[in-house]
Amino acid sequence: MKISLMHGAGGEVMGEVVDLFSKITNTNAGGIGLEALDDGAVIPIGGKQVVFTTDSHVVRPLFFPGGDIGRISVCGTINDITMMGGKPLALSCGLIVEEGFDFEILGKIVESMDHALCEENVALVTGDTKVMERGALDQIAINTAGIGVADTIIRDNGLKPGDAIIVSGTLGDHGFAVLASREEFDFADQIVSDVAPLSGMVHSVMKSGTIHAMKDPTRGGFASAINEMSKKSNVMIRISEENIPIRSSVRSASQLLGIDPLEVANEGKVVMGVPAEEADSILQILKRHRYGRDAAIIGTVTKGQGVIMETEAGGERFIEPPMGDPVPRVC
Amino acid sequence: MKISLMHGAGGEVMGEVVDLFSKITNTNAGGIGLEALDDGAVIPIGGKQVVFTTDSHVVRPLFFPGGDIGRISVCGTINDITMMGGKPLALSCGLIVEEGFDFEILGKIVESMDHALCEENVALVTGDTKVMERGALDQIAINTAGIGVADTIIRDNGLKPGDAIIVSGTLGDHGFAVLASREEFDFADQIVSDVAPLSGMVHSVMKSGTIHAMKDPTRGGFASAINEMSKKSNVMIRISEENIPIRSSVRSASQLLGIDPLEVANEGKVVMGVPAEEADSILQILKRHRYGRDAAIIGTVTKGQGVIMETEAGGERFIEPPMGDPVPRVC
Repeated sequence: MKISLMHGAGGEVMGEVVDLFSKITNTNAGGIGLEALDDGAVIPIGGKQVVFTTDSHVVRPLFFPGGDIGRISVCGTINDITMMGGKPLALSCGLIVEEGFDFEILGKIVESMDHALCEENVALVTGDTKVMERGALDQIAINTAGIGVADTIIRDNGLKPGDAIIVSGTLGDHGFAVLASREEFDFADQIVSDVAPLSGMVHSVMKSGTIHAMKDPTRGGFASAINEMSKKSNVMIRISEENIPIRSSVRSASQLLGIDPLEVANEGKVVMGVPAEEADSILQILKRHRYGRDAAIIGTVTKGQGVIMETEAGGERFIEPPMGDPVPRVC
Repeated sequence: MKISLMHGAGGEVMGEVVDLFSKITNTNAGGIGLEALDDGAVIPIGGKQVVFTTDSHVVRPLFFPGGDIGRISVCGTINDITMMGGKPLALSCGLIVEEGFDFEILGKIVESMDHALCEENVALVTGDTKVMERGALDQIAINTAGIGVADTIIRDNGLKPGDAIIVSGTLGDHGFAVLASREEFDFADQIVSDVAPLSGMVHSVMKSGTIHAMKDPTRGGFASAINEMSKKSNVMIRISEENIPIRSSVRSASQLLGIDPLEVANEGKVVMGVPAEEADSILQILKRHRYGRDAAIIGTVTKGQGVIMETEAGGERFIEPPMGDPVPRVC
């Protein structure tokens, strides 16, 4: 069997790669390990719960409306730590660069990383650079890993019947921004990526509210994240289509291209399950934050299995887990 | 200015890439940060000293005598944690794979990672996989990051006049194994990479001996590592050429190819500065370990600057820091 693009696209097919790692004997250092397939691992150290996670980034183009590969490589790891309930402390940066890559562009990427790090007061403490000869790598790939500390661990499997499902803003922005920018569509400038670090916003919710489960809907989009949460929590989720926030520009592009905005990546959004009685107060906390202005309550958790969408037309259909993200190299 | 292969070759030229990261505002999370340019960072968490480090790996060929990209990607990070005095706890793995890459080969790489992890009882706790389209990446690149805990932090800048310099075995094996394998030289099978995880061996020394400074002589080899230790510690080092352990096969290849074995990468060796009175006992501890059988005391630390080699012919010359490793993509 050969690796296909779908193996990196965040959907169901990625399971075949994950299976390879079943060869690893020791996947857990005493907390939450690789076997949990959550957004990060947890390792107990000195009475603290240390969250540890990694992501590599190969998005094209390197610069797109609303962001760039530097910003996404910092935000991706900050957000994975955050999704576990952790406060990010420090990131590493492993650069792989193609021979001939321009120093000035690399400088802009590093500056953008710095802006995102400063937003959340996270340090970049260690790094490594490798160079591949011309033609052996398309420009640049950036890995970051990160560590944080969690007072309360939040999992993607903690949904309970009765919970409300909240999204922190409009869905599909990043995937369509990348796609539009790559294909040079006329509407390219109207769609802006949502790539953003969510630690501050999420911890302001955690300070005064309860989150039962959360996940950031990156590769494979909301459809992938919500199905994973439903399956791991062993609950049914009912989503109200009319309440899902989607920008009109994204909706237009989605209709033009025949790509479901629920299946493409977001890079600055969180999907939460919260107790119904706290849903309104948590929504208000989110809406006060710059990255949560369009937050909405979009569904409820019940007993059962699967994710059902109550459509605007009054019908019902399943939201299926996508095989992979329809936009390749989206992050 | 453009990135050249030398920017990833571990020598003096790499400083130009490092300078780019001076744009990062926050390089330290309370312990040892990026600005120290040591083998890893240290972050205080819960009264413990957490060591955090990362390396990306792009070595070719993927499989070479004595090892493969999987083993090197695990050992590189275990060894960087170890060089800081840390006991490695957990690694992350960020895979980037070219579309069309064979699953069976990927499986062998993962198995090899597992063997190295098991040797030192380290867990692989979190990971990420990205796929680039055919032609956008030469086969595969593997990033690992790792965390460990150090009771005693050891730096690369702690050498003191009077210290003895010890190497844990023969120098140049990895670089020449990769080169010979890549070029399909006749002597390719006689030179075997030393790639190995050094945590067990180094901590057996730390248990009963004192290490003032240590570093693993990877890219740029011994010449790069010893100059960095000398410069950062602000001391002179005198090395006795006749005491440097070098395999005869490596020496032959070095003469044939005109490449200095002191300038190519090792992946299972450590250079230590230890108090003179403990040098013999530490040497014995190293020699009892499977990865330290050829350990040798090769020099002394004095006041002054630079690294001087007392040659076998009875003369003296400087060991200069190489501009970069003469073997590209050696790790």
